[in-house]
Amino acid sequence: MAKAPQNAISPTREENFPEWYQQVVRAADLAENSEVRGCMVIKPWGYGLWEQIQRQLDAWFKATGHKNAYFPLLIPVSYLEKEATHVEGFATECAVVTHHRLELKDGKMVPSGELTEPYVIRPTSETIIGAAFARWVQSYRDLPLLINQWANVMRWEMRPRLFLRTAEFLWQEGHTAHETAEEAMEETTKMHGVYERFLTDHLAVPVIAGEKTEAERFPGALNTFTVEAMVQDRKAIQAGTSHFLGQNFSKAAGIEFESRDNKREFAWTTSWGVSTRMIGTLLMVHSDDDGLILPPRVAPTQVVILPVTPKPEHEAPIIEACERLAAELGAQSFHGDAVRVEIDKRDLGGGVKNWEWIKKGVPVRIEIGPRDLENGSVALARRDRTPKDKQFLPVAEAVSGISGILQDIQDTLLVRAVAFRDENLVEIATMEEFRKFFTPKNANQPEIHGGFALVHWAGSSDDEEALKQELKVTVRCIPKDPALRGGPGTCVLTGKPAEGRVVFAKSY
Amino acid sequence: MAKAPQNAISPTREENFPEWYQQVVRAADLAENSEVRGCMVIKPWGYGLWEQIQRQLDAWFKATGHKNAYFPLLIPVSYLEKEATHVEGFATECAVVTHHRLELKDGKMVPSGELTEPYVIRPTSETIIGAAFARWVQSYRDLPLLINQWANVMRWEMRPRLFLRTAEFLWQEGHTAHETAEEAMEETTKMHGVYERFLTDHLAVPVIAGEKTEAERFPGALNTFTVEAMVQDRKAIQAGTSHFLGQNFSKAAGIEFESRDNKREFAWTTSWGVSTRMIGTLLMVHSDDDGLILPPRVAPTQVVILPVTPKPEHEAPIIEACERLAAELGAQSFHGDAVRVEIDKRDLGGGVKNWEWIKKGVPVRIEIGPRDLENGSVALARRDRTPKDKQFLPVAEAVSGISGILQDIQDTLLVRAVAFRDENLVEIATMEEFRKFFTPKNANQPEIHGGFALVHWAGSSDDEEALKQELKVTVRCIPKDPALRGGPGTCVLTGKPAEGRVVFAKSY
Repeated sequence: MAKAPQNAISPTREENFPEWYQQVVRAADLAENSEVRGCMVIKPWGYGLWEQIQRQLDAWFKATGHKNAYFPLLIPVSYLEKEATHVEGFATECAVVTHHRLELKDGKMVPSGELTEPYVIRPTSETIIGAAFARWVQSYRDLPLLINQWANVMRWEMRPRLFLRTAEFLWQEGHTAHETAEEAMEETTKMHGVYERFLTDHLAVPVIAGEKTEAERFPGALNTFTVEAMVQDRKAIQAGTSHFLGQNFSKAAGIEFESRDNKREFAWTTSWGVSTRMIGTLLMVHSDDDGLILPPRVAPTQVVILPVTPKPEHEAPIIEACERLAAELGAQSFHGDAVRVEIDKRDLGGGVKNWEWIKKGVPVRIEIGPRDLENGSVALARRDRTPKDKQFLPVAEAVSGISGILQDIQDTLLVRAVAFRDENLVEIATMEEFRKFFTPKNANQPEIHGGFALVHWAGSSDDEEALKQELKVTVRCIPKDPALRGGPGTCVLTGKPAEGRVVFAKSY
Repeated sequence: MAKAPQNAISPTREENFPEWYQQVVRAADLAENSEVRGCMVIKPWGYGLWEQIQRQLDAWFKATGHKNAYFPLLIPVSYLEKEATHVEGFATECAVVTHHRLELKDGKMVPSGELTEPYVIRPTSETIIGAAFARWVQSYRDLPLLINQWANVMRWEMRPRLFLRTAEFLWQEGHTAHETAEEAMEETTKMHGVYERFLTDHLAVPVIAGEKTEAERFPGALNTFTVEAMVQDRKAIQAGTSHFLGQNFSKAAGIEFESRDNKREFAWTTSWGVSTRMIGTLLMVHSDDDGLILPPRVAPTQVVILPVTPKPEHEAPIIEACERLAAELGAQSFHGDAVRVEIDKRDLGGGVKNWEWIKKGVPVRIEIGPRDLENGSVALARRDRTPKDKQFLPVAEAVSGISGILQDIQDTLLVRAVAFRDENLVEIATMEEFRKFFTPKNANQPEIHGGFALVHWAGSSDDEEALKQELKVTVRCIPKDPALRGGPGTCVLTGKPAEGRVVFAKSY
């Protein structure tokens, strides 16, 4: 009997997808649970990935005219209450600060100095930023106001999962105010487009971009636009959202301005955000049974050089060759940045080190051993290929070709993810098919099911709720791509005329 | 009678220094108070300054081998209690989270879902990072562990002041663990040196670097090293600290490792941090009665271009010339970065715009009007000179010379600050002189006094406390510079033999 191929991650995706996910996070050394309920520690490799995401997105925000600022962590409860739907949406998951000191009592430190009004740790900042905007905006000349904040936020999660759903997470939240509804809507769709392109081009994660139905909107928004990724268990992850808030928050906060025709008007506002959840998303989209696979554009290290020194006398010349190569590779550029190279000089077995880097998902590994040194060549392995697949290249070719190799890996990841998504995005015409589609195919993995169902839909929020209860599926979005949206048809559930199709899926 | 010169800021430094400070923060649009007690809103210009500081410091941290990571915002009270001095030091200023939801009761949202153990919002992260280090460190091979975190922290301040002392502030906190005391001490002094150089070279803020006396140490540290800046009212600001924590925190958190000779040992740890307080510091060091003066290296915009268009027909050609100039200036480099240029095209009076940029402290203002366009010249003004002092330069000279001009401004600010500091750093031999030195010279401004007193000192912590009560002065540091420290002498207070001199001052 042939021996099954060995994999670095156990269980495999096929055996137990949720547990595989946890094991990849651990094996790649991205993050870990902390003692604080639902809060994670983001380890250097995971944080390095976030730094790349942050830097690259930040450049896009600035290029589209936004400026960063910083607003208080704490929000008075009375602020949250100003927008009724909003406070309802967040009340059940707020960390509440009630005291401002600790006091020794019976040998124990206990809260003391009760606050007259409690604060919540921001779950999102519409209300506190709205209060600042109300001070800053006086006239139409102060508009548009285009602000972004990089911050931590907190939502008390009952079933936390590293990166995907944690009590505290890192994110950016854009908040803008405009003279007219049209301009605010233009901003909302512009930033929706930025997220779509960022996920596609930088994370190699194809998404379905579209609008949320009423039931799935952000609490207090008039419209919510989303980008939905399909991960390898065929569920959806909402990877970013952009909200058209109308005048709801400007009325609640009093963001009023004198218009061009000297009237007092309320501003039209938007908000939009993505978070560390994107790390969980890219992991679930790209990784395999050997660990993480990082898209080169956001990999903290794009190329790792592994010196192979079987005998002590090899060490000096090999290390020297590695350093020369690192300098040459680092002088190459990839998407405008210097190629990020690291030499792993640790005194560990070559196999151990090689596997560590495979599990961490570094796009390119380059080994240099005594024979390579003699031949003036290197052994290059790509993370998008199998672990043993090595190319032997002359040094000069590895150097001049590195940017092309990284781009080819980036493209390969996207092509694969698109193919997987398309394979599992199915047009469905009847409820019988719909139910079958969302029924688990594998008894061991009740979560694995068909994928994304594209159906004509004219149901109500109550209808959506009923399907959510029955099949754990929700409308992920009304797709903006006309090819997906299609033309009029008959609602799969109600039989009523439907304007077009929507995407249903199970989701994280 | 000659008319007094007009200034943009009222009151002036001479009239009322603390109020002048608030007015500069406001006029420069750096930050403002929020509705949340003691918490500020950092506005785009202030945050842009922080982004420069952060980016430049981060590069130094990475160059010295540190990696960024992220740890939970909330700390279980029991963690804080593990190090006795530490919890004592922070207990009176902790924001305490006691509930995890809000509930509607009698028409009001009130805290609900009480936590079994309360959390504090991190005032600093030694304890929570220590818990992670205890998991990560098993063997001497895992050391040194060199981590930095960029984060918000919270210390409930009773008398907040924008940037200098706020309940919430942004900072970085380095946390490292080492095999030996020597290595930990080496790290402590290395990062102390990084702060000294960063303040001097990047912020043009000269500092006195030295060690704290026992009374002024970080709660739980064995040694604290500080960099102390003198601001224009001659008080001191502690601008950064680096702590040698010995084994106090590793014992509290259980950071144990197997040593090279197979023994279980506790690691030696350090921590070090600087915060948004540096913004208040550079403001108080450099600014004048016309507003903020920014050191070019950290200015969010280094050069602003102001189109002067007296008639509508001037607009198109002048704007075009400004854009050409902006592109040419932006292609120049200053300390390895592209020169940061902005064109202010707003439809406001030229005088209003010019004064806005003076108040914001932008290093260089360049005006282009119709006559300049004809002559192929520009009018260049430097923020380190008086507002009306303009140089008329050929465009090409302005472009090729910009980096030199920026460096000259940077140098001028440092030279001025050093001269001011040296003028007000006085060696004092008797208590009579000492008391006189710290007695206000101006009845209107009780805070203004002599400056930094350099005295031989062999007093106890109690002696320090007595002087603090009497004169509001503290030992800022035991200077490391041998020229300041000097040789043995007689303690100014006790008459006992003293090893050398220390610096006394009033402080923020």
